[in-house]
Amino acid sequence: MASGTLLYAQSGGVTAVINASASAVITEARARKIKVLAARNGILGALREELIDTSKESAAAIRALAHTPGGAFGSCRVKLKSLEADRAKYERLLAVLKAHDVRYFLYNGGNDSADTAWKVSQLAQAFDYPLTCIGVPKTVDNDLAVTDTCPGFGSAAKYTAVSVREAALDVAAMAETSTKVFVYEAMGRHAGWLAAAAGLAGQTRDEAPHLILFPERPYDEADFLAQVKKTVERVGWCVVVASEGIQYADGRFVADAGGGKDSFGHTQLGGVASYLAGRVKDQLGMKVHWTLPDYLQRSARHIASKTDWEQAQAVGKAAVQYALKGQNAVMPVIVRTSDAPFRWKIEAAPLSKVANHEKKFPPAFIRKDGYGITDKARTYLQPLIRGEAYPPYGADGLPKYVALKNVAVKKKLPAWEG
Amino acid sequence: MASGTLLYAQSGGVTAVINASASAVITEARARKIKVLAARNGILGALREELIDTSKESAAAIRALAHTPGGAFGSCRVKLKSLEADRAKYERLLAVLKAHDVRYFLYNGGNDSADTAWKVSQLAQAFDYPLTCIGVPKTVDNDLAVTDTCPGFGSAAKYTAVSVREAALDVAAMAETSTKVFVYEAMGRHAGWLAAAAGLAGQTRDEAPHLILFPERPYDEADFLAQVKKTVERVGWCVVVASEGIQYADGRFVADAGGGKDSFGHTQLGGVASYLAGRVKDQLGMKVHWTLPDYLQRSARHIASKTDWEQAQAVGKAAVQYALKGQNAVMPVIVRTSDAPFRWKIEAAPLSKVANHEKKFPPAFIRKDGYGITDKARTYLQPLIRGEAYPPYGADGLPKYVALKNVAVKKKLPAWEG
Repeated sequence: MASGTLLYAQSGGVTAVINASASAVITEARARKIKVLAARNGILGALREELIDTSKESAAAIRALAHTPGGAFGSCRVKLKSLEADRAKYERLLAVLKAHDVRYFLYNGGNDSADTAWKVSQLAQAFDYPLTCIGVPKTVDNDLAVTDTCPGFGSAAKYTAVSVREAALDVAAMAETSTKVFVYEAMGRHAGWLAAAAGLAGQTRDEAPHLILFPERPYDEADFLAQVKKTVERVGWCVVVASEGIQYADGRFVADAGGGKDSFGHTQLGGVASYLAGRVKDQLGMKVHWTLPDYLQRSARHIASKTDWEQAQAVGKAAVQYALKGQNAVMPVIVRTSDAPFRWKIEAAPLSKVANHEKKFPPAFIRKDGYGITDKARTYLQPLIRGEAYPPYGADGLPKYVALKNVAVKKKLPAWEG
Repeated sequence: MASGTLLYAQSGGVTAVINASASAVITEARARKIKVLAARNGILGALREELIDTSKESAAAIRALAHTPGGAFGSCRVKLKSLEADRAKYERLLAVLKAHDVRYFLYNGGNDSADTAWKVSQLAQAFDYPLTCIGVPKTVDNDLAVTDTCPGFGSAAKYTAVSVREAALDVAAMAETSTKVFVYEAMGRHAGWLAAAAGLAGQTRDEAPHLILFPERPYDEADFLAQVKKTVERVGWCVVVASEGIQYADGRFVADAGGGKDSFGHTQLGGVASYLAGRVKDQLGMKVHWTLPDYLQRSARHIASKTDWEQAQAVGKAAVQYALKGQNAVMPVIVRTSDAPFRWKIEAAPLSKVANHEKKFPPAFIRKDGYGITDKARTYLQPLIRGEAYPPYGADGLPKYVALKNVAVKKKLPAWEG
């Protein structure tokens, strides 16, 4: 039987299903009699020796973790530099790992985290310490290389498509005497994945969303407003989905066009939807509503995708298996073997191929006119939002999300002066 | 058997369950062999003689209507003046009703609509035409008098409480190195009902939402910022729920403090959440995220409350029964007979007691410090979000919402010159 302890940590923006990966990691490790510690707030907890003893959690709590959004152990936005530049940190990290007999390190995150995992995976050789480091994929941004998709994206995509379909029915009912245009702002500073997912809400050009604005296409205000006008004339109303990352042809972010300071010197927090809504109001004189779901879209476990949920658990389970086999410096990735019927499997990919690469949004996913998605996009996106994976609800009408005890492990080292 | 046709219309802002009332109206009328027409876009369709023949819809479509958000026949924001001031409109309305043998008029809406229904109910006598007019309650604002609650509110309340609970888990995970404060803007220009519903997401002062801002309490920026600071120091992070209608002590809306025009003369659409977030950022220097769900909160049929859904259908069914009994000028209202176990029944209330009255948010629902809800509020609100009433989903991962055929009835009158 394998010996040594497994350390699991969550990193970067959390999602509706990252805890499902955590639950699968702990469940699989328990089945194999491996002790699991969790770092509080990602790599920070590992450096600070703030470790959580997951063996104090009941089996029921670990099962409930699988349907609880957020990051149960805390996450962080911290990126380690190279071994040379951050040598003191790596030495501290290794000291903590040694002190707690950690032989397996699982880092659950997105692009930056894959980079961190890759760097940590190099420690074994550099410091001659037997450590197996595995990256576990997660991000609503869907921009990790190699893997077919990233756990977290499918649920955010489902939230987006469902919300847009619902809001569109509202606008359609109000349009005759009230709101004619509705603008939905989707996450995606660098790529149009979530904005594209909104496209699943409708099939034809007359079905909402009528216009999608991608960061991959320059924002042309005159053309956009002309499209809105034409849509309202044709359909009676118009639903716009805008990616937060849309840019003018010269590369400036549209989100920065709004906002700034008001006459009192107060910060005005703008955003793309509020800006576009203001332009529609000013230039077309139409009543407009807009929404910025922000964190709601990535934490909406209540409308999680079953595909996404299953994949989140599968990568967690596989990560433990790879770790125990000593497959250092890999990440369990999702490989799609068939679109229809939708089939996928998990494979180990070298972290070097994932870290510091970015999956770009394919140009072939954007309709020729630039305002919608293609059939190719639908073929890719549709299975990712398939199936419902409802959390259980209490008699109080609220989802039963678990709050772990998160019992701290006794520190063995002096405090970190990082 | 009763003779004559029933005309049903939807009015005001639509909700996740107004179509459930419509479905119940049509189902009950069909069972009693009463023909149901629907006005396109509320009272406007009645004036324009734009009527829809609901008999063209299949039984399956009417069943599906019960789980479809929005307003299937279109709604409107139009208020009729007094019989004297708008006599031409009332005469036209009566001409349309007569032309189509309409003996029962059901108007499904909020406060303004109850007023319209009450005025129409007076037509019978004024014009000596046998018309029975019934108001059917609906509004996420929950401000109708007499009734215990308004169909539509419970589902928006459930959306609010669930979304706040989920986003809070996200913020809690990010707070160590990123977002420390999250601001959620709830609908409610005049009353804090939906903001209060967010309070159901937590039980103690350390559970989110930590601070609720009610329109019933003057907004005191210095105190608010001090509370945010204290909460972050105590809990590590802070979730704020602000009603869109919060005001300064002098009555100015906080929402109007943001927004205005930017240096290009462009309209800046602000809102309460973005403004508060800007103040937190400027004054406390904390990283802050904010959300404006807007229409998402009132159209989110995917997370509808079962209580709300059942009540929406119950008022629709009762409205038809009252109509056929000739109970003119009434509204089926919800009477709560017990908090625990939660029990309710439907009764007929005079429209005169509903129209032009407003149910105020009870001061006893606000905690002494002004930033939370009391046990009294919980007792009232909790049963309203109880139970799930999921729509069916397709293999595409999206809710199966129905689009009715909405076949137009042939016009019999000259066009309306209103």
